[in-house]
Amino acid sequence: MAGSSFGQLFRITTFGESHGPAVGVIVDGVTPNVELDLDAIQHQMDRRRPGQSSVTTQRKEPDTVEILSGMYEGKTTGAPMLMIIYSKDARPKSYDAIKDLYRPGHADYTYLKKYGIRDHRGGGRSSARETAARVAAGAVARQLLARRGVSIVAYTIRAAGVACETVDLDVVEQNPMRACDPVAAEEMVRRVEQARADGDSLGGIIECRVTGVPVGLGDPVYDRLDADLAKAMLSINATKGVEFGAGFAAADMTGSEHNDAMDATGFVTNHAGGMLGGISTGADIVLRVVLKPTSSISKPQRSLDTNDQPTEVVTKGRHDPCLVPRGVPVVEAMAALVLEDHFKRHAALHA
Amino acid sequence: MAGSSFGQLFRITTFGESHGPAVGVIVDGVTPNVELDLDAIQHQMDRRRPGQSSVTTQRKEPDTVEILSGMYEGKTTGAPMLMIIYSKDARPKSYDAIKDLYRPGHADYTYLKKYGIRDHRGGGRSSARETAARVAAGAVARQLLARRGVSIVAYTIRAAGVACETVDLDVVEQNPMRACDPVAAEEMVRRVEQARADGDSLGGIIECRVTGVPVGLGDPVYDRLDADLAKAMLSINATKGVEFGAGFAAADMTGSEHNDAMDATGFVTNHAGGMLGGISTGADIVLRVVLKPTSSISKPQRSLDTNDQPTEVVTKGRHDPCLVPRGVPVVEAMAALVLEDHFKRHAALHA
Amino acid sequence: MAGSSFGQLFRITTFGESHGPAVGVIVDGVTPNVELDLDAIQHQMDRRRPGQSSVTTQRKEPDTVEILSGMYEGKTTGAPMLMIIYSKDARPKSYDAIKDLYRPGHADYTYLKKYGIRDHRGGGRSSARETAARVAAGAVARQLLARRGVSIVAYTIRAAGVACETVDLDVVEQNPMRACDPVAAEEMVRRVEQARADGDSLGGIIECRVTGVPVGLGDPVYDRLDADLAKAMLSINATKGVEFGAGFAAADMTGSEHNDAMDATGFVTNHAGGMLGGISTGADIVLRVVLKPTSSISKPQRSLDTNDQPTEVVTKGRHDPCLVPRGVPVVEAMAALVLEDHFKRHAALHA
Amino acid sequence: MAGSSFGQLFRITTFGESHGPAVGVIVDGVTPNVELDLDAIQHQMDRRRPGQSSVTTQRKEPDTVEILSGMYEGKTTGAPMLMIIYSKDARPKSYDAIKDLYRPGHADYTYLKKYGIRDHRGGGRSSARETAARVAAGAVARQLLARRGVSIVAYTIRAAGVACETVDLDVVEQNPMRACDPVAAEEMVRRVEQARADGDSLGGIIECRVTGVPVGLGDPVYDRLDADLAKAMLSINATKGVEFGAGFAAADMTGSEHNDAMDATGFVTNHAGGMLGGISTGADIVLRVVLKPTSSISKPQRSLDTNDQPTEVVTKGRHDPCLVPRGVPVVEAMAALVLEDHFKRHAALHA
Repeated sequence: MAGSSFGQLFRITTFGESHGPAVGVIVDGVTPNVELDLDAIQHQMDRRRPGQSSVTTQRKEPDTVEILSGMYEGKTTGAPMLMIIYSKDARPKSYDAIKDLYRPGHADYTYLKKYGIRDHRGGGRSSARETAARVAAGAVARQLLARRGVSIVAYTIRAAGVACETVDLDVVEQNPMRACDPVAAEEMVRRVEQARADGDSLGGIIECRVTGVPVGLGDPVYDRLDADLAKAMLSINATKGVEFGAGFAAADMTGSEHNDAMDATGFVTNHAGGMLGGISTGADIVLRVVLKPTSSISKPQRSLDTNDQPTEVVTKGRHDPCLVPRGVPVVEAMAALVLEDHFKRHAALHA
Repeated sequence: MAGSSFGQLFRITTFGESHGPAVGVIVDGVTPNVELDLDAIQHQMDRRRPGQSSVTTQRKEPDTVEILSGMYEGKTTGAPMLMIIYSKDARPKSYDAIKDLYRPGHADYTYLKKYGIRDHRGGGRSSARETAARVAAGAVARQLLARRGVSIVAYTIRAAGVACETVDLDVVEQNPMRACDPVAAEEMVRRVEQARADGDSLGGIIECRVTGVPVGLGDPVYDRLDADLAKAMLSINATKGVEFGAGFAAADMTGSEHNDAMDATGFVTNHAGGMLGGISTGADIVLRVVLKPTSSISKPQRSLDTNDQPTEVVTKGRHDPCLVPRGVPVVEAMAALVLEDHFKRHAALHA
Repeated sequence: MAGSSFGQLFRITTFGESHGPAVGVIVDGVTPNVELDLDAIQHQMDRRRPGQSSVTTQRKEPDTVEILSGMYEGKTTGAPMLMIIYSKDARPKSYDAIKDLYRPGHADYTYLKKYGIRDHRGGGRSSARETAARVAAGAVARQLLARRGVSIVAYTIRAAGVACETVDLDVVEQNPMRACDPVAAEEMVRRVEQARADGDSLGGIIECRVTGVPVGLGDPVYDRLDADLAKAMLSINATKGVEFGAGFAAADMTGSEHNDAMDATGFVTNHAGGMLGGISTGADIVLRVVLKPTSSISKPQRSLDTNDQPTEVVTKGRHDPCLVPRGVPVVEAMAALVLEDHFKRHAALHA
Repeated sequence: MAGSSFGQLFRITTFGESHGPAVGVIVDGVTPNVELDLDAIQHQMDRRRPGQSSVTTQRKEPDTVEILSGMYEGKTTGAPMLMIIYSKDARPKSYDAIKDLYRPGHADYTYLKKYGIRDHRGGGRSSARETAARVAAGAVARQLLARRGVSIVAYTIRAAGVACETVDLDVVEQNPMRACDPVAAEEMVRRVEQARADGDSLGGIIECRVTGVPVGLGDPVYDRLDADLAKAMLSINATKGVEFGAGFAAADMTGSEHNDAMDATGFVTNHAGGMLGGISTGADIVLRVVLKPTSSISKPQRSLDTNDQPTEVVTKGRHDPCLVPRGVPVVEAMAALVLEDHFKRHAALHA
């Protein structure tokens, strides 16, 4: 396979570069004859778009999504949907300075070595701008999942070295960090703004919780639900790890601690994170994803130019000082894509 | 897809249940006309087989692998290879007691709910016995990778609450925990033996290091090398998370700390874990996988029977008190499968 | 993909060479909790096995299929099924004479050039013996389809230059040619026996009719039901073409002739062969496959040796003088695999 | 899979309906760093576009293709290419009359039954307009193949009941039927124009010849080159069959006639059509595809309305009286897609 597609039965294929004329996605395998709420799709786009607060990049993209196929009179037809986002604030020229440099922490070096050619403008295909296409497709998946009683919410649980002490979902969309603890959020914002001022960047951890998934989703042994979610999460830019339920803390637990007991009401605990043997248990699916600090910083860094000569790089331009807040809807979107796909896979197994 | 296959161009499909007559794998897409060292394949099987030490299950399986197709006069032909391991010490009857129970932490509940039928004998398809097939296929991949200059080594870096203080690869195969620190290994063994005596179990973390990978492997944006490795690792029984390079620690770093500088000799540090933008950098690939404590314990646990009535479960039988030592060759095998596949994918891109 | 798998959701992967120890198949994605009739599976194997009449090869293989996984107490579990047929009458030595020759019409030349190595014994992987695995998997699919009300029957409509004048399905299994016209069948047998005596071989055409398929199967635009059936048929050894409904005769028809009118009872005619726009119409699916005359003949033929030197080849051994009778169950099996897969795909679309 | 993608490594995914705002394709897996001739791509579009002669539909679409991603400074980057063709002469209103009818021979009935909803405007997704996307992607494949020394040419060998007596490739693009015999072409045009005048339509047969393919392409046993070509051809609208080399005529041949002898110069004959065992032989690949007469005719036909009530249908609008001339570049495009994919697959096998 060629790398730009994700999913088996509910399947997306994306295209587009950061400063090209458009990014977008073909969504194939959509349940036909379903009315879609286009405003709700755009709402998800708005959550991801740049320029929404002091802790994100200041690039101004409305990220208006247009659907050019696969719908008729407001309903899905079962034909592939082209969702396209035309660029409004592309500034390819502003990247001329880094045309012949490898920015540390970026994919500049690996793309050029892999492909033998590089669209350096804003990172080209390696840019997080591609995630706009994921959010668009994910917004369709979310609506299909909502009909199944499934809801997905993600939030920042740690960023800029600050951990959330509470998980209050009501505050998530009310602070620019999308943190689940309003007090922690304030400190996070302060630190991120300071990092921006310092020409530096910060990382963090996003937690995602999926509610309403019935027991039975996931296709062992290779397409376990957790395996597919892990791939989904690690396909997102800047992610460096994923864990489910107790996650890495399970290393230090005993079996008698970790095993989730069952009583008449179901699972008493959820160390498993909602999956056993790669199949959903009916409990909430809980996962966490770590995002590294943004690679693009304006502090000078040692690097090479494309002739492999040592040089110093300073990345100008409009960058997110912390990727976590805008990563939240992307994590949700990827979770939605995996789940919608597995609902269909499960139905097919029993068909 | 149906869930029993992994990989695109170097592709495996496995079959078999824990106490069935055989487990095995079809390996398809093998480079033709390559001489294979069958002893080296069996050696990998021996590293995974049960009964090898005091910290593993005492089931006695020689795990002799037979190759029934795809080879001619000692060489691969390019035709699919059936690698089969016939069971010698299956004792399906010994599981009669748990036939109608859901063992906590096991896939008993999810398998029965998903499929409507359950082969309860030793966990059936959900058993870690399936990983014998992965190690067999992985042993073929390793030999192909060795020709490319790639070597893969995994080892226990934390188990039973004990962390390795040193990384000494020479000692890994000399202690039953496959730990990279001989002092820590001794304490791990002591704790695991105690856990077994207590009817309990313990977890741990395996680190895997791949050396010799050239820059350029991985197919962004969805089939990034790290995304495919993440899926591979989370498809292994009992895994609850994976991280690359700095991993979860990246959450608390700044960009200027995390970005790996480059000089004339290459990357000065390797916080990225050998991949940028989902493409290998040429530096070592470094990942860590957490394994939960074994679900099968003989301490009584609260659970349900298959009529959803509360009951107490005590799991008898022969189980690993800690899955980590036998997990090491499985992690290596899955890494090998991903890398061999991506070598072929990269070649195809430029063909 | 690596070439040994077929199907998306109901998916088979085969292995094995003509004179190796076994051929077989992993069937993945089987609906769980379904009781299978093993005798009925073996019955399909018996229809394909060699040595059944004067018009087939005299190799004696009982072709007993064993199922080593994926079943429990007579029912499918949803886990992959390994179906294996161990060889009983392999005579690899008898092919020593052609070890260094390219038999005309065979894949000897192309396999050696493609793979750089060749298992010449009975054609190795290119042998029609691989179709035993298809028939085994197809026999599972047939039982699943029977529960859906679908039945598949194929029969010889032309062979050895003789056309059937009637289509009497009751006589098909009563003559060794599996022809649908008993009078034509007698003449076919006579000509095939003569061809064998002459050291030559003959071809023919198989028609396949699928009854009971509801309207709606097929996934345009690329996975049309006819496209997938065409691939299935052309994947069978010795096939040189496929046509649906009116087929090649449609070239000379007008639209007003070819278009199937509809009235209250459905389609008045079936020139379309049961599919429109790649989707089943509810009418019978009708297709025809042409099989070339067997390549293996004992008449001397001009060819090359593996050093590219001109030589004369005489193929000894036990060969079918006409592949059509044993091809009939293979055509049915491939049709069954496609249909079962598409039932699952259709269910997934609407899930 | 969801049905809108084709190919494994060189992979296309198409979108768009006949009278929607655009049709197009994402081409993924394109060899990077290759300069593309955009005029040559547009030239292929022009060969397929409507309104080019008296024997095609009179819809006026310039079919200008725009490439919105995957190129940089005139070269491919290895990133997915979005090729989009915006509609200029869409007239969705003109289909109001058939909104509630099933046109005989069309996919109206099967689409509505399958999806439960139908974009009736010009056939929606089932329209041959989708083939514009195939030709665009195929034009990229052709350029990559040309670098490999492969050329593809298709032509009409039979249409309107008239057979070509000669195969003169020089005249193919000089007559509106794209026939390989100028005399036959004149008679074909006369008959097609008469059929249009009569409100009827006609079918025909396209032959495709691929030159320069080396020995070795194709992945037995399921992804044989002929099997993949067969699927490709039957995925084209209005096709009802495909044959290779001697094709259906092989049914009446003997093995000694059909087997292609070899001498020092290669194959003496080419009854195999350039493939043996599903692998290319190095001889020309020769296949023929039959296209039924266009379903859309203005003669009254018996049919049903969407309430399943008998009615009479007269299809107005702008239709091709014979699909064969515009089918020629589509057949070439599909052949190109299959071959480019298999070149990459073959390289991967040996990598």
